[in-house]
Parts: sequence; structure tokens; C-alpha cells
Amino acid sequence: MNQAIEKVSSQLAFGGQQIRFKHQSQVLNCEMQFSVYLPPQAEHRAVPAVYWLSGLTCNDENFSSKAGAQRVAAELGLALVIADTSPRGEDVADDPDGAYDLGLGAGFYVNATEAPWKAHYQMYDYIVDELPALVEANLPLNQQRAISGHSMGGHGALVIGLRESKFSSISAFSPICHPTSCPWGQKAFGNYLGEDKASWRQYDAALLLQERSSAPPIMVDQGTADNFLEQQLDTEALIKANQLSGSGAQIRYQQGYDHSYYFIATFIEEHLRFHASNLN
Amino acid sequence: MNQAIEKVSSQLAFGGQQIRFKHQSQVLNCEMQFSVYLPPQAEHRAVPAVYWLSGLTCNDENFSSKAGAQRVAAELGLALVIADTSPRGEDVADDPDGAYDLGLGAGFYVNATEAPWKAHYQMYDYIVDELPALVEANLPLNQQRAISGHSMGGHGALVIGLRESKFSSISAFSPICHPTSCPWGQKAFGNYLGEDKASWRQYDAALLLQERSSAPPIMVDQGTADNFLEQQLDTEALIKANQLSGSGAQIRYQQGYDHSYYFIATFIEEHLRFHASNLN
Repeated sequence: MNQAIEKVSSQLAFGGQQIRFKHQSQVLNCEMQFSVYLPPQAEHRAVPAVYWLSGLTCNDENFSSKAGAQRVAAELGLALVIADTSPRGEDVADDPDGAYDLGLGAGFYVNATEAPWKAHYQMYDYIVDELPALVEANLPLNQQRAISGHSMGGHGALVIGLRESKFSSISAFSPICHPTSCPWGQKAFGNYLGEDKASWRQYDAALLLQERSSAPPIMVDQGTADNFLEQQLDTEALIKANQLSGSGAQIRYQQGYDHSYYFIATFIEEHLRFHASNLN
Repeated sequence: MNQAIEKVSSQLAFGGQQIRFKHQSQVLNCEMQFSVYLPPQAEHRAVPAVYWLSGLTCNDENFSSKAGAQRVAAELGLALVIADTSPRGEDVADDPDGAYDLGLGAGFYVNATEAPWKAHYQMYDYIVDELPALVEANLPLNQQRAISGHSMGGHGALVIGLRESKFSSISAFSPICHPTSCPWGQKAFGNYLGEDKASWRQYDAALLLQERSSAPPIMVDQGTADNFLEQQLDTEALIKANQLSGSGAQIRYQQGYDHSYYFIATFIEEHLRFHASNLN
């Protein structure tokens, strides 16, 4: 596998380095960018990493610039690995109507099986395999990993964290908890995975959790003033699955918060401390 | 004076309200937007305000979304009043070549005396008089005020804070310290104020400071990896003026930091604590 990465930019933040990289992804079959925050501790030793998956329309820069996570990461000695949300490039398929919820910026962290999507849309394998291998080969990271995300990325973090043992804790902000039964998920899965809904189940956090008798430590925050809560996010399905499984996830409603990065900024410190306590 | 303001949006952040307003500015002769962060304490009492002036190309949203200031403001019980950087609207004059350093997004916090600028570009009076009167009439703010800003806004904060007694402390990130002798300042002042350079001196922080025998408490941070440092910012001129005046400003070089919001985010906590200690 080609493990070359090229630095696009680097900026000092809280004594550490906020760096943007590009590389040729073998899994996604296109050039990709991602961002990494290396805390000051990484100058002297390999550090654990929290992987961040963003939501619809985002790339790696939204979380980097708006969440205020670097301050806490610098204190805790955590790297942040911030992924893009879909394959990119002119020859990558996109929603025919240019909608925001399918195609570019909307990879939904699945491995597509249907044309035209399957040529590039292999975001599950990219996040699970290629990206960790790449950053661990090139940067001072050890193999301790946690995973977190927002909205579509909260869905991705929960699904990946529940299925893959390489992440020792999981957190999510405003996740799409039950995508097989909401409009965003049904549109995306119908396109990427086809109409056989049996294949959809492996990408549905509520369905995955309810089948588990145990799970890694999980923290979920959901704002009560989130415009997408009722139609798209279905936190109640995750709460019910958690009760069925007895896996002890912390799922919290936060009164008055919306779907924005102001919500993430408010609670990211708690999430990073949660991950740090499980990584060490 | 028309003191009506209209709420455009409101979002919960760190237990307080991040609010965007619009209003018809009498001073600028156009509709303006600005943002205010009200900390949780403002539900029960009037709070002091730190006014924030942004840099070239910015509006009120850059600082709101990227600086991470709300966390500390919520802890300290400080409101943040975040202004736009120029008058706005289709009939407002702009740089004929669409350059970023004159016209829209580049008001330089002066009262223009030259056509076509003088019809709208009265940013000095807007920040000093109209905006404080407006927010204090409509929001739970007391009359304790501090002022801060970045780059062009650092220039504005220093100039306004040195000239106006209504601000009890001043801080700046990467300010344009000596605009009468740098390309940005000479272009802007030549257009807004005309070729009589005597009128420029009232808007030059280094010249204002060196004539003072005392000044309010001042904190300035400047990154050493800032691409604009040598040609535009001239921190050395401010340091020299500070030595001549004996006014005791803290002017600090921060090793390796650039001109971006990552720099601001890293040090905004120290600036807000500095202002809080002088406000109370």
C-alpha cells in the first residue's frame, strides 16, 4: 500500500501542530486530504489518537477550526485525526441533483456496492484501515485509538466503534442513530448499498447495539433544540437498543442545544476527557 | 437615534446565548449585522462587555465561530460584542478592483472624510458611540467595557482604546501597529482620509501611544511566524512607542505562531482574563 503523505499546511495551536495532509488513497481511488492535530507531547513520544468523523457537507476543516478541541487535546496529550466525509475529485460520482445528502460530502462511512458509487465510495474501509495505517506509519502515534463524530459522523463513529475492536472508546454528537429508518439513511443506503435492506443492518448503530451484550465505553450527546432530532436522528432508538443490550452507553439529552459546532465546542472537552480516561 | 435591533439567530453555547442581530445604522447609513455572546450570568444581572474588532475580509462570524472565546466568557461572566468590519450593502463604495484591503470588509475603524467613502465609512463613530449605545439599551450589559481585536481590528482596538476613556483595558492580536507607514494603512488612509497626512496620525497606535504619559492596561500578542509581521504590522514601532511613553503595555512575541485564528484561540483565554481583572 502506498503510504506516502504530503504536508499541505501546518500551523501552531496550543503549543502543538495543526497539520493538513494530502495523499493518494488506494481504497477510495482518488486524492484525499485530512487533518491531524499533534499535541506538544508528540515531540517526545508516540501519543494516542482520537479519530473524528464529520457530518454532511463538511470536510476536515470544520472540526479543526470550530470545535476548540486542540486546547484539551494539548492538555491530555491526544492527537486528533480528522477525516474528510467522502471521496473527492472530478471523476467521483455525485448526487445528480447536487443534493447535500448524497455523494460528495456525504459518504456515510459505508462501503458502496452499487454503481456508480462503488468505484470510490469505500469510506468504511478508508476510516477503519487505510487512514490509521497511514497516520501511524508517518506520524508519532501509538496504536491506541478512540473514535468520535458528529451527525453523519456520529453514525460513522458508533457503527465503526461497535464493529471494530481497534477503537477503545466511542463518542458521538447528534448521531444519526437509526439510519435504516430515517430519510437521510434510506436515501444514502438505497443508493450506496442497493435495495436489499439486509445489507443495511451492518451500518445501523441502533440495530448493531441492540444485538450486543457488551460494547466499548460509549458517550453520546444530543441537543434538544436540534432541528434534525425528530425526523433524522432518532436518539430514542439508540436509548432503547442500549437498554436491550445492557451495554451501559451514556446517552444524554442536552437541554436547548442545537445541531451546530457551538454544541460540539461546549461538550468536546468532556468527550476528550472520556476518551483519555479509556485510552490510558 | 434609532435603537431597534432585530435578532437574526440565537444558539446556545457554554450555557449562554450566541446571538446575531441586525439593525439600521444611523452612523453608517446602512443595515448592519453584529453578534453578541451573552454569558449565563446575564440571565440574572447586567454584565461587562469585551468589544471585538475583526481583521480584513472578516465579518462578525469569524471570531464567533473560530476563537473559542465563549468558554472563557461564560466562566468569567463577560459578554462579547463582535462587530462587522465595514459598512455593508449594494450602494456602499468598494475598492474599484475588488481588492480585499479597501472598502467592504476593510473599514479600518476610521471616519472617512473623502468621497465616495464618507457617505458610509464612519466605523470609528460606529464602534465608539452607536454600537455601545445600541447593545446597552437592548441587552443586559452594564457600562463596563474592554476592547480587543485582530490585525486591522487590533489596530482599531488600540486606537480606540487609547483615545476613548470608555474602555478600561485594551488588547490586540497581531495588530497593524503603525499604519501610517505600512502599505495596508497608507492605501486605506489615503483613500478614506485623503493625502493630508496630518489627519492620519489620530489613527496610528504607535504615534498615539508615544505621546501618552499613561494609558489603560494594554496586552498585545504577536506571532513570530506571521507572514504579515515585517511588511504590515511593525510591532517594533509599538514597542518603541511603549518605551518612550512609559505606559507599561505588555507586548509579547509568541514563538512560531502565525496570523490565523489558531493563534487567537491559543491566547484568547489570557486576554479575556486580563480584561476581566481590569473590569472588576
